Amino acid sequence: MTTAQPLQHEHDPSPPEPDAAADADDEEEESRVWSQIKAEARRDADGEPALASFVYATVLSHPTLAGSLAFHLANKLASSSTLLSSTLLYDLFAAAHAARPDLRAAAAADLLAAGARDPACAGRLSHCLLDYKGFLAVQAHRVAHALWAQGRRALALALQSRVAEVFAVDIHPAAAVGSGVLLDHATGVVIGETAVVGDGVSILHHVTLGGTGEAVGDRHPKVGDGVLIGAGATILGNVRIGAGAKIGAGSLVLADVPPGATAVGNPARLLLGGDQRGGAPAGESMDHASFMLEWSDYTI
Amino acid sequence: MTTAQPLQHEHDPSPPEPDAAADADDEEEESRVWSQIKAEARRDADGEPALASFVYATVLSHPTLAGSLAFHLANKLASSSTLLSSTLLYDLFAAAHAARPDLRAAAAADLLAAGARDPACAGRLSHCLLDYKGFLAVQAHRVAHALWAQGRRALALALQSRVAEVFAVDIHPAAAVGSGVLLDHATGVVIGETAVVGDGVSILHHVTLGGTGEAVGDRHPKVGDGVLIGAGATILGNVRIGAGAKIGAGSLVLADVPPGATAVGNPARLLLGGDQRGGAPAGESMDHASFMLEWSDYTI
Amino acid sequence: MTTAQPLQHEHDPSPPEPDAAADADDEEEESRVWSQIKAEARRDADGEPALASFVYATVLSHPTLAGSLAFHLANKLASSSTLLSSTLLYDLFAAAHAARPDLRAAAAADLLAAGARDPACAGRLSHCLLDYKGFLAVQAHRVAHALWAQGRRALALALQSRVAEVFAVDIHPAAAVGSGVLLDHATGVVIGETAVVGDGVSILHHVTLGGTGEAVGDRHPKVGDGVLIGAGATILGNVRIGAGAKIGAGSLVLADVPPGATAVGNPARLLLGGDQRGGAPAGESMDHASFMLEWSDYTI
Amino acid sequence: MTTAQPLQHEHDPSPPEPDAAADADDEEEESRVWSQIKAEARRDADGEPALASFVYATVLSHPTLAGSLAFHLANKLASSSTLLSSTLLYDLFAAAHAARPDLRAAAAADLLAAGARDPACAGRLSHCLLDYKGFLAVQAHRVAHALWAQGRRALALALQSRVAEVFAVDIHPAAAVGSGVLLDHATGVVIGETAVVGDGVSILHHVTLGGTGEAVGDRHPKVGDGVLIGAGATILGNVRIGAGAKIGAGSLVLADVPPGATAVGNPARLLLGGDQRGGAPAGESMDHASFMLEWSDYTI
Amino acid sequence: MTTAQPLQHEHDPSPPEPDAAADADDEEEESRVWSQIKAEARRDADGEPALASFVYATVLSHPTLAGSLAFHLANKLASSSTLLSSTLLYDLFAAAHAARPDLRAAAAADLLAAGARDPACAGRLSHCLLDYKGFLAVQAHRVAHALWAQGRRALALALQSRVAEVFAVDIHPAAAVGSGVLLDHATGVVIGETAVVGDGVSILHHVTLGGTGEAVGDRHPKVGDGVLIGAGATILGNVRIGAGAKIGAGSLVLADVPPGATAVGNPARLLLGGDQRGGAPAGESMDHASFMLEWSDYTI
Amino acid sequence: MTTAQPLQHEHDPSPPEPDAAADADDEEEESRVWSQIKAEARRDADGEPALASFVYATVLSHPTLAGSLAFHLANKLASSSTLLSSTLLYDLFAAAHAARPDLRAAAAADLLAAGARDPACAGRLSHCLLDYKGFLAVQAHRVAHALWAQGRRALALALQSRVAEVFAVDIHPAAAVGSGVLLDHATGVVIGETAVVGDGVSILHHVTLGGTGEAVGDRHPKVGDGVLIGAGATILGNVRIGAGAKIGAGSLVLADVPPGATAVGNPARLLLGGDQRGGAPAGESMDHASFMLEWSDYTI
Repeated sequence: MTTAQPLQHEHDPSPPEPDAAADADDEEEESRVWSQIKAEARRDADGEPALASFVYATVLSHPTLAGSLAFHLANKLASSSTLLSSTLLYDLFAAAHAARPDLRAAAAADLLAAGARDPACAGRLSHCLLDYKGFLAVQAHRVAHALWAQGRRALALALQSRVAEVFAVDIHPAAAVGSGVLLDHATGVVIGETAVVGDGVSILHHVTLGGTGEAVGDRHPKVGDGVLIGAGATILGNVRIGAGAKIGAGSLVLADVPPGATAVGNPARLLLGGDQRGGAPAGESMDHASFMLEWSDYTI
Repeated sequence: MTTAQPLQHEHDPSPPEPDAAADADDEEEESRVWSQIKAEARRDADGEPALASFVYATVLSHPTLAGSLAFHLANKLASSSTLLSSTLLYDLFAAAHAARPDLRAAAAADLLAAGARDPACAGRLSHCLLDYKGFLAVQAHRVAHALWAQGRRALALALQSRVAEVFAVDIHPAAAVGSGVLLDHATGVVIGETAVVGDGVSILHHVTLGGTGEAVGDRHPKVGDGVLIGAGATILGNVRIGAGAKIGAGSLVLADVPPGATAVGNPARLLLGGDQRGGAPAGESMDHASFMLEWSDYTI
Repeated sequence: MTTAQPLQHEHDPSPPEPDAAADADDEEEESRVWSQIKAEARRDADGEPALASFVYATVLSHPTLAGSLAFHLANKLASSSTLLSSTLLYDLFAAAHAARPDLRAAAAADLLAAGARDPACAGRLSHCLLDYKGFLAVQAHRVAHALWAQGRRALALALQSRVAEVFAVDIHPAAAVGSGVLLDHATGVVIGETAVVGDGVSILHHVTLGGTGEAVGDRHPKVGDGVLIGAGATILGNVRIGAGAKIGAGSLVLADVPPGATAVGNPARLLLGGDQRGGAPAGESMDHASFMLEWSDYTI
Repeated sequence: MTTAQPLQHEHDPSPPEPDAAADADDEEEESRVWSQIKAEARRDADGEPALASFVYATVLSHPTLAGSLAFHLANKLASSSTLLSSTLLYDLFAAAHAARPDLRAAAAADLLAAGARDPACAGRLSHCLLDYKGFLAVQAHRVAHALWAQGRRALALALQSRVAEVFAVDIHPAAAVGSGVLLDHATGVVIGETAVVGDGVSILHHVTLGGTGEAVGDRHPKVGDGVLIGAGATILGNVRIGAGAKIGAGSLVLADVPPGATAVGNPARLLLGGDQRGGAPAGESMDHASFMLEWSDYTI
Repeated sequence: MTTAQPLQHEHDPSPPEPDAAADADDEEEESRVWSQIKAEARRDADGEPALASFVYATVLSHPTLAGSLAFHLANKLASSSTLLSSTLLYDLFAAAHAARPDLRAAAAADLLAAGARDPACAGRLSHCLLDYKGFLAVQAHRVAHALWAQGRRALALALQSRVAEVFAVDIHPAAAVGSGVLLDHATGVVIGETAVVGDGVSILHHVTLGGTGEAVGDRHPKVGDGVLIGAGATILGNVRIGAGAKIGAGSLVLADVPPGATAVGNPARLLLGGDQRGGAPAGESMDHASFMLEWSDYTI
Repeated sequence: MTTAQPLQHEHDPSPPEPDAAADADDEEEESRVWSQIKAEARRDADGEPALASFVYATVLSHPTLAGSLAFHLANKLASSSTLLSSTLLYDLFAAAHAARPDLRAAAAADLLAAGARDPACAGRLSHCLLDYKGFLAVQAHRVAHALWAQGRRALALALQSRVAEVFAVDIHPAAAVGSGVLLDHATGVVIGETAVVGDGVSILHHVTLGGTGEAVGDRHPKVGDGVLIGAGATILGNVRIGAGAKIGAGSLVLADVPPGATAVGNPARLLLGGDQRGGAPAGESMDHASFMLEWSDYTI
């Protein structure tokens, strides 16, 4: 969970310390991702005139991924009912990306994660950039999180509200979300105020990282690096989901899950041997079904 | 479930009988809520110029909560695709609030409920008023319910449809919803035609109060006062959830639940001793996780 | 699953072979449905002036159901953020309906299915046409599916993305969906790339027909004719749900379900005797609760 | 110019003194005008379904002319580029009309003037109310003038700017405009800061009441009651156009014109005998051509 | 004025008698114009990605000029403030063009007129189709005129009102406008209820064909074929402007002008020898200045 | 006409040669203007909450005048009917201002000109920046002119078209417009393709700088530095209006006017002694009436 560290302490307004070597790597990755997206977009613009101007305005006319993202998010989240115009949001997002290179690097990492883990995205990073509600919701959240850290809480909450309306993804601006994160399908995801999501995590739709309702203060889950959370899973309370753990679809988790373990069912129990197959962390393989087969096989 | 009584018989078009003493109390509560919201809004307007005009137009320029709410809902639900302009909806909502003081009192009670039960809302009633999809969906539903009772069914259904699109909350206009109700996060909530929701109920996101599909007529749940329903719970059929009961997250409930009882699991079973801790009704404490700990503890 | 056959092979771009007799039947059905809708719309226009022009423009001014549907979908899905204007979409949908009479027949069959199975819709096909997110999402999907088959993938994905935003229904354009299908409430439905949905299927909200994440290629469920899938059920992987089967609300299904069988629970198990009551296929009766009563009765 | 008196001193923020008898007359006139408009609107709504909801929302659903006007102006002048939403403007206009009964009376008088003087309007006061750019521009100006008098100059100027964009009519908010005024066609009318327009004046399109540019302070024309100004006429400087005078189309006027006189030409000269025909004041007859015939006849 | 004959009797609702030979000619011309426009549009779409989708949606995706025009006008004139959506207008314009081939032929003739007479348009018929306010205003007027003839007067007036707002061109729907007409620049043109404009007429901006105000009934100018009217000219009353006449910029005309004559000045007088140079009719040469040189030369 | 030199040769696509000293002066002026505007805007934002967010987003949040102008123009000219979104235009205008410092300097000079010459603007440069149609039209024209010079003619013409619709100001993108130019009121101004407008020129509304229609090629007026053109004046053909000349309101000019001369009337004639009063150039004093008094005095 190292690279997301600074994001995980939501009351710490300071951006991450600059690290020249890491930054150079990030920029190279960003630039590689951006080249691929532009090539895809060029093909789409050539082949589909109904989308050519959209693709031009949103992708091809921008020198960087960050500019494209700020432009696209601004258009998606503009709202006449709250007087947040697309041009105002464009300025807001562009300024946030300029001030915080780590936000840009995280966006590139998220795109690569989607490309690597989601077969429907493969070979189409541009589709993910333009169309994935989960990807867009997370990028908007990163800006809301930065605003929250600066004390601009009313604006951060207004952004959260727009994201919840437009994408049906409800992430409290104080929640800390790592890098290389994939929210797949994303509809209905809820992530509470004191939740922390590590790097390389994959979260399917309808997942809740909720509070207990009872406690004040730190009351939401802490999800480790490389965790995979299946569709409709509900994790409640200040529990720890250890790195590389897998949470089955529809599970209800109310207690800690050890690193690498597999938890399934309502209420959830640990599967024996869940982690013995080795291989990539759960969040990276995005295999959110086969690890449950043994458990469910005998039930049908 | 007494104060919501008149709302619970959805075929009864008559508004509640006037009760001068209760009305005076309601007005005092409304006015107290409104003062707090205005104070918060003033701070936000001063601190965040990007929101200042929105806050002014939506909150500060209105003498009453009811006016503010009609204004805000109208802007949120306006739809060019159904030719429902914001100004038409403003007139519609303002007229409904003028004719039905109980709708205004219920809105104030809902805000207080959110403030009392949702830690993320505490100290920010204005945030709840402006941004909470669940709060706004319920207020729009109340107007749709009143239109339904007047026989303006096409308009009531059009409103339901807009609320379902904009807030992803689908409440049939015939359903009866009490006062002091909190829909937290709210995405994906579905409440069917003959459902009844009592006073002081808390409902998390993805909750379904569904019909059996088979029966005609009265076929949806009746939820008593002070009930708490966890995220993703599904309650089907004309069953009674007794006052103060708790339904665990992800539960599937197909039978009556006694007052004060706790039901968990898929399918749900009753937890022994669920209600013995006493204290506030479940819906009011909003503790939607700890009551399940005993049940789930041994499973992980 | 016969009539939906051609749709079920999503890599086959060819429209169904013309069948004069079947086409005549389809047209008669379409025309009957259309007559009923116009009569209902006339009543609404007369009774509710706030909706009169909407009803006129969307229903009464169109000679056919197909024209009305193209008009209404275009207005619903228009997006300034992706430069897809309502007039462009109107042309697109009208052209698709003109080229593919089977899309029009399927829309009529879907409306009749909603009218027959959903008590809240009964006697109000126009309400279903105008307001049901699930109905509209499926019709837009059929056009996206046709575009996908023609190789216009960027446009098909853009449509999917709009549908996911506007209706919170996420159907991959490659997925094959049969005729007479009802998505009830619909919020949060996710249907993956290689999924197949037969004729006469009923799917409640929050249902996932998901991939395993691990496999490439054919990795999503195949749902037979007349299946009923309850709210919040999650079916993962390339499994077969036999014709007429019933999947309980909140179930997690990871294995094949035999025709006519009933699967419930998380993880799902088969109920004994689930199909012995005979009668109509599950998807047609839309009774998505009573078949689980036996199983759940003893748990509460 | 008596009834417009208070409006003519633009630095006087006080509304006119109440005069109970005059007010009762005004209200009766307002109510008579409103009855006629409603009857016309009902016919239009019945005969033209494409307009039925517009006519309902804008006319039929309002109990008073003032409400209808505030509603309609708000929709016309709303501007996303200046964040002036229609609902905000609706509140603004409704508040202005509530505080200033003389604004409402002037609107009714303007409608009657249009009905009496413009053959194209005859029998269609509703057409004038809904469609006449000049009528709408004047009503918006009256509100801007009131705001200016209250010291809300930035808002008054913003309104002027919107009116200039939407209707191509540019009236400085400080200018004083009387009652029973008709701006016919209205495109291109410019009225400067210290101009005064009396009661019963008729002004055709492209008319300028301009300053001299040189002087500061009081530098625009003073137009008396019942004056008629033909299309394209330009009147510059602090000159007096006497009551009942006629200014020919295309005239350039740089000096005072006596009451009842006729001025024509570029530069303008007085026609002999211009006022000897007697009859109604020029502004009321709206005959803006025949009085020039004698002058022009011999030129062609 | 022969070909415009049927349009000149605005109370005659019948479309022109079909004339097979003339229709074939018209269609050939239409098709030739359309080919040129498509070729130009293809170049623009290739060269300017910001416009590619607009050009595709508005021009390239349409098989005929009529379809393109209906599409473009619908988008230009759509109005949320009068609930006239672009899709409704698209249907309205497409239906009018389908029913009245003469409207389509007149549009093609207008485009050719602009191409032939306006140097700024030369070689860019697509620019004229897409951008010329005068061209678009005239085409919308033709539809309004047809609606007026059918007795749909409220809708015709609503269209006039939109055209006046969007293009600052105010043509009463009862006015009869011929074919091959060019409104150059067009801002501020006003054409009254009983005016008639012949074929091949050129009208510059700020031109008024106004009534006398005094008379009821037939009270506006009758402009013959091939007339040229310079910028800012004002023609008032039921006067006849003979075929091929020229009216100088800024002229005020209150009396008949003989065929081929030249009228200049305020008030206008006839220039001697105005028509003796022969050559093309004035309206076709579009030389709206040199014919006045002789008259003005000695004045400066 | 020196500083505008490069702009006056519209076929020369090269931007002006950098001149370090002049640029520094320009930047100082720009910065001084910007400071004044910000101070005014701050007052308006504090005093008028309905405008506070607009003023913040459009003025206060921008570090430079150029950014503010690009932002504001983008919002004003965005058009859903031509798929030109505000965010696309924002990028376009910002890029043009970045590449061409002379455009920014000219904007500052225009603002100072308005402040110096227009009494209604005095002390309110922010009002001019935000609300003056003429100022905004000229700034948009400068960008269109730059696009035209780069060969992006379709986009330049699309911009011209939007400016003509939104502001009723029609300037051909090839026309060359100098610096310190004031279009006052601006409605109906038409400036043709080969026209040239010098520095320090003042042009009132309804002014035409038109072609002769006959000639191809260079066919529009050349207006020298410091010229003043009164309301409704029409200047036709490739004539020269000498520096410091004055053209009376409503004049028709078809021939050269010597430097410092005064031309009035229709057709225009020279006034004797027009320039002998000395003092500031006509365009700078903005006294567009008194110079005609002598001529007109004896006519009335």
